[in-house]
Amino acid sequence: MPRTAFFISDGTGITAESLGRSLLAQFEDVEIRMLTKPYIDTLDKAHSLVAVIEATAVRDGERPIIIDTIVDEEVRAVIREALGFKVDIFSTFLKPLEEELGTHSSYSVGRTHSIGRDDVYMDRIHSVHFALDNDDGARTHQYDKADIILIGVSRCGKTPTSLYLALQFGIRAANYPLTEDDQDEDGTLKLPRVLASHRHKLFGLTIDPRRLAAIRHERRPNSRYSSMDQCMQEVQQAEAMYRQMHIPFIDTTRFSVEEISTRMIAETGLHRRFSPH
Amino acid sequence: MPRTAFFISDGTGITAESLGRSLLAQFEDVEIRMLTKPYIDTLDKAHSLVAVIEATAVRDGERPIIIDTIVDEEVRAVIREALGFKVDIFSTFLKPLEEELGTHSSYSVGRTHSIGRDDVYMDRIHSVHFALDNDDGARTHQYDKADIILIGVSRCGKTPTSLYLALQFGIRAANYPLTEDDQDEDGTLKLPRVLASHRHKLFGLTIDPRRLAAIRHERRPNSRYSSMDQCMQEVQQAEAMYRQMHIPFIDTTRFSVEEISTRMIAETGLHRRFSPH
Repeated sequence: MPRTAFFISDGTGITAESLGRSLLAQFEDVEIRMLTKPYIDTLDKAHSLVAVIEATAVRDGERPIIIDTIVDEEVRAVIREALGFKVDIFSTFLKPLEEELGTHSSYSVGRTHSIGRDDVYMDRIHSVHFALDNDDGARTHQYDKADIILIGVSRCGKTPTSLYLALQFGIRAANYPLTEDDQDEDGTLKLPRVLASHRHKLFGLTIDPRRLAAIRHERRPNSRYSSMDQCMQEVQQAEAMYRQMHIPFIDTTRFSVEEISTRMIAETGLHRRFSPH
Repeated sequence: MPRTAFFISDGTGITAESLGRSLLAQFEDVEIRMLTKPYIDTLDKAHSLVAVIEATAVRDGERPIIIDTIVDEEVRAVIREALGFKVDIFSTFLKPLEEELGTHSSYSVGRTHSIGRDDVYMDRIHSVHFALDNDDGARTHQYDKADIILIGVSRCGKTPTSLYLALQFGIRAANYPLTEDDQDEDGTLKLPRVLASHRHKLFGLTIDPRRLAAIRHERRPNSRYSSMDQCMQEVQQAEAMYRQMHIPFIDTTRFSVEEISTRMIAETGLHRRFSPH
């Protein structure tokens, strides 16, 4: 029977879940079922959740782990009574921070925050639409407005990465697919002409040809496009060009979209227009 | 002179930053400059960062706040020596969790984790491409494969929300724009026929007409499309239809994309295909 962990918040639950998952990921041997419970912002919801937690404790035969970031004093008091092992992030760290900063936190006076901000909202909308308008080499004339231009072979992860950069950090990321159209007569990939004047903005993606073939296979099964030969050849050409032109690049095979994006930012010093929550 | 906070990690820094921002957001009166330092995964990088932290302490005239999730023991030891006020998330909570779970954490043996997982990667790629293929009513025939279909007037936030649902949770979100084409002769908005058989999947978005006008104005200045009259009329019609057809809806004006998405999931019980980091 696995243990259960509850990530509880009166907001989105993103912070409680993010921290909770990071902490529990350190216990690989223990099977833990993780449940996020956001928007627990009334006494009624808190009482219902306590009932769920206690039923879980009975079923599991072990008390659940409770990781919460509830701000409201009364709601917190209800959850605190639940039968569980509590990791109380805010109250653990806010007291010492209050002393260090010489002031009271709004937490200690029970005020909640909304993470929606006008400027962030507008930056996000613009960045997302910029990424979409400049996806897959669609509108090359906006490259002068791009913060970064991702290049790579078809289905190596350019689109999810450019959208993540837009949503999480407000970065305007264009992307351009490297295809056989950009090859020399002898089969060598050249830097496409439309990118030549933006070389300092280029960032390459590469991928294990086997994974590429698997991804392409789902799109066009048993095609030349998804064949191992074709994938190997395209990836080799792309990597050779990155090296020859000194274009920084990252292998997306081993990394999540979060890792690819944050590594790019760390490597290029890209300016984040805003920060996530 | 503002205080400075460093969010330090040997990974993406997402957890340290997310928690750090949540904690520091509770101190609205204090001006705090926040810097995220991801991928501090060698002794060299750690020593360089310590130099930066100490220079910052001198400049600010106050010791910086250091919030870290470094796993590597030696790297951690270097950062621990820096002049700063430390919020050590992992070591604070892992010890009690080890006792509760009756086992050692990989943290205490210095093992790092990568957040990239094959199944998550594939789910993400598919969900993102699903959102793009089904953006703005483009390919209505995939609605049977959608987990949710967002509806709303043009530029009310459908696209960023559907992409966020795809990237963060692997949810397949289509979206469909409500336009004048879907109005009756008397100007009443009807539920578009292509959506009629998917009513249980519909989720409406609405927005303050003033914000809508501002967003549209940046796209097509001084047009009928961006006029207050037009925006008010479209929003009123959309909301009337949501109410009449009992379609759940959310006002995107006051909320971030994170909040809109997590509220939708909480309200509909949508199944998350994976969880962020």
